[in-house]
Amino acid sequence: MIVRPQQHWLRLIFVWHGSVLSKIFTRLFLNFLLSIAVIVMLPWYSSLGIKLTVAPFSILGVAIAIFLGFRNNACYSRYVEARQLWGQLMIASRSLFREVKNTLPDDPHLSEFVRLQIAFAHCLRMTLRKQPQADQLARYLSPAHLKAVMSSNSPSNRILLIMGEWLAVRRREGHLSDILFHSLNNRLNDMSVVLAGCERIANTPVPFAYTLILHRTVYLFCIMLPFALVVDLHYMTPFVSVLISYTFISLDALAEELEEPFGTENNDLPLDAICNAMEIDLLQMNDEPEIPARVLPDRHYQLT
Amino acid sequence: MIVRPQQHWLRLIFVWHGSVLSKIFTRLFLNFLLSIAVIVMLPWYSSLGIKLTVAPFSILGVAIAIFLGFRNNACYSRYVEARQLWGQLMIASRSLFREVKNTLPDDPHLSEFVRLQIAFAHCLRMTLRKQPQADQLARYLSPAHLKAVMSSNSPSNRILLIMGEWLAVRRREGHLSDILFHSLNNRLNDMSVVLAGCERIANTPVPFAYTLILHRTVYLFCIMLPFALVVDLHYMTPFVSVLISYTFISLDALAEELEEPFGTENNDLPLDAICNAMEIDLLQMNDEPEIPARVLPDRHYQLT
Amino acid sequence: MIVRPQQHWLRLIFVWHGSVLSKIFTRLFLNFLLSIAVIVMLPWYSSLGIKLTVAPFSILGVAIAIFLGFRNNACYSRYVEARQLWGQLMIASRSLFREVKNTLPDDPHLSEFVRLQIAFAHCLRMTLRKQPQADQLARYLSPAHLKAVMSSNSPSNRILLIMGEWLAVRRREGHLSDILFHSLNNRLNDMSVVLAGCERIANTPVPFAYTLILHRTVYLFCIMLPFALVVDLHYMTPFVSVLISYTFISLDALAEELEEPFGTENNDLPLDAICNAMEIDLLQMNDEPEIPARVLPDRHYQLT
Amino acid sequence: MIVRPQQHWLRLIFVWHGSVLSKIFTRLFLNFLLSIAVIVMLPWYSSLGIKLTVAPFSILGVAIAIFLGFRNNACYSRYVEARQLWGQLMIASRSLFREVKNTLPDDPHLSEFVRLQIAFAHCLRMTLRKQPQADQLARYLSPAHLKAVMSSNSPSNRILLIMGEWLAVRRREGHLSDILFHSLNNRLNDMSVVLAGCERIANTPVPFAYTLILHRTVYLFCIMLPFALVVDLHYMTPFVSVLISYTFISLDALAEELEEPFGTENNDLPLDAICNAMEIDLLQMNDEPEIPARVLPDRHYQLT
Amino acid sequence: MIVRPQQHWLRLIFVWHGSVLSKIFTRLFLNFLLSIAVIVMLPWYSSLGIKLTVAPFSILGVAIAIFLGFRNNACYSRYVEARQLWGQLMIASRSLFREVKNTLPDDPHLSEFVRLQIAFAHCLRMTLRKQPQADQLARYLSPAHLKAVMSSNSPSNRILLIMGEWLAVRRREGHLSDILFHSLNNRLNDMSVVLAGCERIANTPVPFAYTLILHRTVYLFCIMLPFALVVDLHYMTPFVSVLISYTFISLDALAEELEEPFGTENNDLPLDAICNAMEIDLLQMNDEPEIPARVLPDRHYQLT
Repeated sequence: MIVRPQQHWLRLIFVWHGSVLSKIFTRLFLNFLLSIAVIVMLPWYSSLGIKLTVAPFSILGVAIAIFLGFRNNACYSRYVEARQLWGQLMIASRSLFREVKNTLPDDPHLSEFVRLQIAFAHCLRMTLRKQPQADQLARYLSPAHLKAVMSSNSPSNRILLIMGEWLAVRRREGHLSDILFHSLNNRLNDMSVVLAGCERIANTPVPFAYTLILHRTVYLFCIMLPFALVVDLHYMTPFVSVLISYTFISLDALAEELEEPFGTENNDLPLDAICNAMEIDLLQMNDEPEIPARVLPDRHYQLT
Repeated sequence: MIVRPQQHWLRLIFVWHGSVLSKIFTRLFLNFLLSIAVIVMLPWYSSLGIKLTVAPFSILGVAIAIFLGFRNNACYSRYVEARQLWGQLMIASRSLFREVKNTLPDDPHLSEFVRLQIAFAHCLRMTLRKQPQADQLARYLSPAHLKAVMSSNSPSNRILLIMGEWLAVRRREGHLSDILFHSLNNRLNDMSVVLAGCERIANTPVPFAYTLILHRTVYLFCIMLPFALVVDLHYMTPFVSVLISYTFISLDALAEELEEPFGTENNDLPLDAICNAMEIDLLQMNDEPEIPARVLPDRHYQLT
Repeated sequence: MIVRPQQHWLRLIFVWHGSVLSKIFTRLFLNFLLSIAVIVMLPWYSSLGIKLTVAPFSILGVAIAIFLGFRNNACYSRYVEARQLWGQLMIASRSLFREVKNTLPDDPHLSEFVRLQIAFAHCLRMTLRKQPQADQLARYLSPAHLKAVMSSNSPSNRILLIMGEWLAVRRREGHLSDILFHSLNNRLNDMSVVLAGCERIANTPVPFAYTLILHRTVYLFCIMLPFALVVDLHYMTPFVSVLISYTFISLDALAEELEEPFGTENNDLPLDAICNAMEIDLLQMNDEPEIPARVLPDRHYQLT
Repeated sequence: MIVRPQQHWLRLIFVWHGSVLSKIFTRLFLNFLLSIAVIVMLPWYSSLGIKLTVAPFSILGVAIAIFLGFRNNACYSRYVEARQLWGQLMIASRSLFREVKNTLPDDPHLSEFVRLQIAFAHCLRMTLRKQPQADQLARYLSPAHLKAVMSSNSPSNRILLIMGEWLAVRRREGHLSDILFHSLNNRLNDMSVVLAGCERIANTPVPFAYTLILHRTVYLFCIMLPFALVVDLHYMTPFVSVLISYTFISLDALAEELEEPFGTENNDLPLDAICNAMEIDLLQMNDEPEIPARVLPDRHYQLT
Repeated sequence: MIVRPQQHWLRLIFVWHGSVLSKIFTRLFLNFLLSIAVIVMLPWYSSLGIKLTVAPFSILGVAIAIFLGFRNNACYSRYVEARQLWGQLMIASRSLFREVKNTLPDDPHLSEFVRLQIAFAHCLRMTLRKQPQADQLARYLSPAHLKAVMSSNSPSNRILLIMGEWLAVRRREGHLSDILFHSLNNRLNDMSVVLAGCERIANTPVPFAYTLILHRTVYLFCIMLPFALVVDLHYMTPFVSVLISYTFISLDALAEELEEPFGTENNDLPLDAICNAMEIDLLQMNDEPEIPARVLPDRHYQLT
């Protein structure tokens, strides 16, 4: 994620980092070259009776804009939902530990429970990003738990099971009444909601045909555009063609980035920073002496 | 569902499998032939004083694009909701079994309960896809239960009733307090929400008149389009006409696929893979020795 | 509701039943006649210096399409919400009876309770459709209950009160603990949510001014359209004018149908079929011997 | 609120009452006069080299239509949410009283509690409409309660506090177990949700800048429109200009009405009727002898 | 926030304060100057064969309007959600204190608890606005609590922990049963939801690339617009160009303001007023003698 710099509106026009411009620059440059070629070739192919006008492209442009707007909406919703799920994880983690601490203030294993919670967040993050997990999780889990977690098909879910067992032991020992066990279990269920929600977003993309259809129509539109513009605009064709292409292609490219919000690209969610904030919060709630430092944006205003 | 291949943006333009192109190819080809016929016949029917211009088609095109955008939205919402319901089933299944296992760790019939849960997911999947169920369910249910389930009008609901009875027996025997029974029952209610939600999507389509009206206007628009384009574009008519038709017809066709998300077409939900993942998870949570293999996409990147 | 027939895309263009075409045919035919009149009168009124061009109608057409899209959305949301409410009734009914049956398996009056639940669904359906209720409800309610229900201003709510009393009696007799009574009461509250939600949709239409404004602009637009088209299209005016009018008027008419989803028109909800399915399910859950037959679509694919 | 009359589609075009036409008639008439002035002055200002064409207004018109559609959506959402909140109040009121009556069937002060509930609805209605409250509330509240309520900054909230105390007294006296007290308290919390939701809608308008920007662009657009139309349309300018202006101005005016849904204008919510229905329902649930008459629409089909 | 003044529709056109006009005036003025320069230079650069027409800008304008509509929607949703979260805080605060007061009417430390609740609201407000907190919080918190809160990374969350401990002490002392402790804890969880929701909105902006892409296309569009308009409109170019630019730039600027709803700009949320209302309500519920005065809008109708 790019943390928005506070810049003058005029300077924003020239910002390079964080826009999708770096990704689509080649495509826009090809469009520019094509426009120049079209200007040069115009006399030749006009003589063949080939001509294009702007009017049908107006219909096409509006239709593509509407459908692109729809796809942007769909992809942005996934991004927003993903962020909300991690917000809910923050809520459930804090509430769970607050209830545990208030209900079992003298339990000698509270710091074990806090580490289980932290491990859950990191484990979920690394599963979603397909990163290796064992080293990181070894800092929070006992060897026996680590082994059980790593051998599971769904490691985060296994950590939930271990947390549930931690609470169930207290219930069986009589430190938790059924009603409070039920209440704490609901917090675990909230974390289960986050887990399955993130899995859903990661495993089920926007139907691939949407991507294909819009990709295809956007690029065919941009390829044919210079031929239609050249009759009216002549020397100005490359500039107008690149501006229109930029509008359509950049939104197509951005929608693709947002569609998979758990990656590490410019416009993806800062899961590292969120996990870090959660870890700091939980450790402070347990009044632990060593608190990790806060993750800050790098010099390109980027958080991962 | 097509698992999105990681391909260069240029290659994506030529992807065939997974787009709806195979479905609508004939219609686009007919449009191409019609455009050629229109070019040939132009001198003849112009002499009759018949002429069409692009301007009114611009109004029509924008209006159809807006309404098509609306219908796409409605159909895509059904797809998203269907996927969310199956995500909720995953959540409820894991939470239910976690609570059962933590609360009744020594119950000798836990694996029976796990199989009831798995049977529910498979039964729901097969009901939605109108597939035969008895053979598959026989692997998870006792003969008595299987008979009761198969003779019911709503087999998945009957499995919920059996699960409720399984829990109620434990309550009557004193192994479950009322509060924990209430808590587990809420998980069954969550599964009931999924069941009725899926039935709703499967049984209540988007109002048929939407489909009819858009279908009709899209095709009439595409049929009349070459007549309007030919005056300006002449030889280029077929290419522009097919491109515009492709934009409209492909989105109409895709909306139709997404409207019924429980089928086995390219853009439908991968219920087989979801049931498989749920089965693996639940069996691992019960530490069972035999875990089925994971379902993977076929060589066309498709999951069913 | 029309159950969608599986038909070839080409045949769908000619489907008559279930589209709103039957309703708006007269209006389209008037538009056709007007277009012909306009062609005939063109020389006369051109000589008066009266002329219309397509360009301003393009602005108007797009604006109306956007606002019509908005109204369609609003009306379709009501339809979807109404369907979801009935889905929630299905969920609450099954969950309520499952909990009652699991908790009070030996209660001799279970079939009375099942009939109260069925009566609630039928009573709600008939209230929403303003149909006579006494005869139908007499099949499910005891005479004393029937009298109390029929004399109430909100009969469905009175049935909820009776169900609550049925449960409260068991609580007072010691067969239901407070926690289970509370749980069952929550199911009644879910049914209360459905009841008030349906009343809200039935009693509060989309603000009437939306209907008026769009109705007026759509029809004035369609009336003035032939005058604007005739200069460019001449003999083709009637065809293009009717096609554009069809697009706008049919969506206006469909929005009107969906706005009140509880009626018995083509595109309304099949409340009869839903109540029937609920009745079958509940009776089967109680293992009753006599189960009513399923309601099936008629030969026009219609369910009411 | 206008209860929609069942009228022929042709007559609907001429309905006056309930549309926003009465409000904006002057503005449309000014637009008409301006158009005539423009026709008269055309030769003079053309000679000065001043000219306007429709094309740039096409861009502007579409942009304004899109933004107006957005604002309509925002305002309509407020209307819908306000209606849903009052629907939730109906749900919470009925559920609360049903639970109270079933749990405490022999309590001698049930009718006091019913009146507290009715007072809450009326008090909320009158607060939202900034109407005097003391007289109306005196019919439902004891003098001591009335005094406490009227001296509070948030009178409806004070009634909730009194209801909570009513229940708490029964808990302390041992007539309500903690679990049932908790359950009833949740109903009070539901009513608190309605209260704060209504306050939010009433106190936080759509950001004022939206209103300003759209107001300004819509009116400037309508003022400049005749100048652009006159070159093409000449004598037809006033009719087309007024039709386009009507489309934009009426939706702008309607959005303004819906933005504050608690007023007493044509398109506002019928809070009087909703409170009346709630009162009848609650009194009938308590089998009280005197039930007030139902509020019916006046001869203009209007409910307040 | 600007409290909407009740003004005549005609006067609204000239309102200055509260619109974003003050912010974008320079940009519009530059656009005006550019238009005049374009008129002057027209003969010179036409002779070079450079020309622009309106048609391609029509495609671009519609596309930008659609994407701007999308971004406005996204930013406005953040504003609405932020307001709803503060509404939920109001709900949770009142419900929490009502339950505490009804359950523990004789507790001598109720006013301590009320101040903890008020401190939470102020602390959240000041965290979101990055304002200094210690002085303000010292009025509500004991020195020990203040120290713990100020040394925490997430001070509001620490206040929740203290409130939880306050309740847990009563539970351990036997004044709160487990079920009532669970109920009150749920209210704290509701406040935790608000806290994490506000943090999410404050820390995760709309993907920066959206802002960049739209900013860039809007300004390039407005810069090139006069060149396209001048051929048709000549002397009228500056007026039409500024009107179109105003429509696009003002909505772009407003979206930017709404994107971060917790600031103190014209269109941001009135957090001071909301906290003040909450403080008055809570103190009145505890019948405290000294109630602070209500915050009222300043003479520009503005609340902060």
